[in-house]
Amino acid sequence: MSDRYVVIDLGGTRIRAARCRADGHIEARVEQFTRAIEDPRDVVLARIADTARQVWPDTNPLMIGVGSPGPLDPWTGLILNAANIPALIGCNLRDALQDALNVPVVVGNDANVAAMAEHRFGAARGYSDVVYLTISTGIGGGVIIDNKLLLGKGGLAGELGHITIDYHGERDACGNIGCLEMLASGPAIRRIAIKRLAAGEQSSVREKVNGDLEQVSAEVLGEAADAGDVFALSVIGDAARAIGLACVNYLHIFNTSIIVLGGGVTNLGDHLFTPLRETVETYMMDAHYRVPIVAAQLGDNVGLLGALALALDPPKQKAA
Amino acid sequence: MSDRYVVIDLGGTRIRAARCRADGHIEARVEQFTRAIEDPRDVVLARIADTARQVWPDTNPLMIGVGSPGPLDPWTGLILNAANIPALIGCNLRDALQDALNVPVVVGNDANVAAMAEHRFGAARGYSDVVYLTISTGIGGGVIIDNKLLLGKGGLAGELGHITIDYHGERDACGNIGCLEMLASGPAIRRIAIKRLAAGEQSSVREKVNGDLEQVSAEVLGEAADAGDVFALSVIGDAARAIGLACVNYLHIFNTSIIVLGGGVTNLGDHLFTPLRETVETYMMDAHYRVPIVAAQLGDNVGLLGALALALDPPKQKAA
Repeated sequence: MSDRYVVIDLGGTRIRAARCRADGHIEARVEQFTRAIEDPRDVVLARIADTARQVWPDTNPLMIGVGSPGPLDPWTGLILNAANIPALIGCNLRDALQDALNVPVVVGNDANVAAMAEHRFGAARGYSDVVYLTISTGIGGGVIIDNKLLLGKGGLAGELGHITIDYHGERDACGNIGCLEMLASGPAIRRIAIKRLAAGEQSSVREKVNGDLEQVSAEVLGEAADAGDVFALSVIGDAARAIGLACVNYLHIFNTSIIVLGGGVTNLGDHLFTPLRETVETYMMDAHYRVPIVAAQLGDNVGLLGALALALDPPKQKAA
Repeated sequence: MSDRYVVIDLGGTRIRAARCRADGHIEARVEQFTRAIEDPRDVVLARIADTARQVWPDTNPLMIGVGSPGPLDPWTGLILNAANIPALIGCNLRDALQDALNVPVVVGNDANVAAMAEHRFGAARGYSDVVYLTISTGIGGGVIIDNKLLLGKGGLAGELGHITIDYHGERDACGNIGCLEMLASGPAIRRIAIKRLAAGEQSSVREKVNGDLEQVSAEVLGEAADAGDVFALSVIGDAARAIGLACVNYLHIFNTSIIVLGGGVTNLGDHLFTPLRETVETYMMDAHYRVPIVAAQLGDNVGLLGALALALDPPKQKAA
């Protein structure tokens, strides 16, 4: 047996795998694009195992860590839901991969393990209490309390994007109302921008997309904001304010020691972080709750390093 | 040394003290009304010590547990703020009482220790993961994760009433915007009812208070609701909906195993609990988050039994 770990980052459109040392050094890395949404379970499982074998060490790894989308049972590895990989719903992914690869496997929720990654290897190193938020197509999260991942009774804790901020808001696909995700995810920012442009607001964004509002995106808004476009700054600022108020909620609830924000939307940089930090400073109860609010550091490797962090510190079985 | 505990429940208008056994049995109990808001620190401290001595066992107790209002440092006993007992702000209450009484003292936030009480002795016995909310003049809370109180980095976690639910709402005294406390505390329910009555809504409440809207209270609304008053049911239902959405937030964040609601507003009974439970059922992400939502069981003893639960399980010193 080698002293290496094999780690897998499952997504709806790609599988990443890597061979890692315990210190986070990635020795080999592969990435395979898939259309998992159409494939039956045996094909999906075989593809995952095959991707893992491409980075396999000379002798068996110590453990395999897997980050998977969707709610799952982190103690058993049972996938409860996975909108982008429907074949895995109801599958015990841990048992299936253990059978295929003959190495102990541990499976965690992708946003949860990303929090573990930033805590162990990234922006939150040295902080005992961490709120991590990933803001991209959706908004997910993970919470570290006293250096341990918050799992909750059923392992489903940390759904930080699905909290109501706007009591009078619209219903989210998740079932909840006025969720943070409805106000500040990439698609939400795009939808709000298009709605305001369609209502006649002036902006250079309109020319950027040659009048085709379907082409509006967070990225296009970011470019317009770089050039000082007031509309773009306003749309991004509104999303930042929503995220900031959610951060105030997390601080009042957790009294954490740092907040780390990752995901594609954070590429908006200071256009997002400046109004977001101002919102937190304005609305938190008092200075005892003040923390650094920083960008994630691990980029595209966050899922792989999260799977590694999970393999290094798998959840303990709960007392009955 | 006896095997008894002395416990103290500090409030702005009264001090309660009791002599308890470890199993929660209260052997002696005193209650002293005070006007602590006007007294200097030495008078307040002497009164607390004196109240404790009134229930003192034959030989020294094992420990003294104290539940105190306001943010405080649960590891050192330093009171950071206490709106109703201003003399204690900046006081190390643990050291002061240890010096006066020569017995080890532990001090905790009142809402936090109330959560510990309901977990150890009340409605949440046997549940590993608990969200406790006390809804009265303000809204406070406490969270139990895997049978341990959530404290956060600085011991200030669990401010569950000070989370934004209404993103477009008014500013709370706490500094935050559209807090749950602004929508569903006793004074909030009263304020909203008065505003709606002043705007002309019809209700039997108007006759109940002989047209003097200053006499409107949650209690009066509850009586009107008992008689089927549609206005009173609507006002209470709106508060219930706000609390319910906050509960959905807690469930998505903590994936807890029970929610316990205490405090005077819960005397509204089914007028509150029925729409509250319906709101949670409607807006939670899926059935995996479903939990019992129950009334607290310990009534006026919750603070004393919380101080006992704290003395039985004081916070461990944090790693650096």
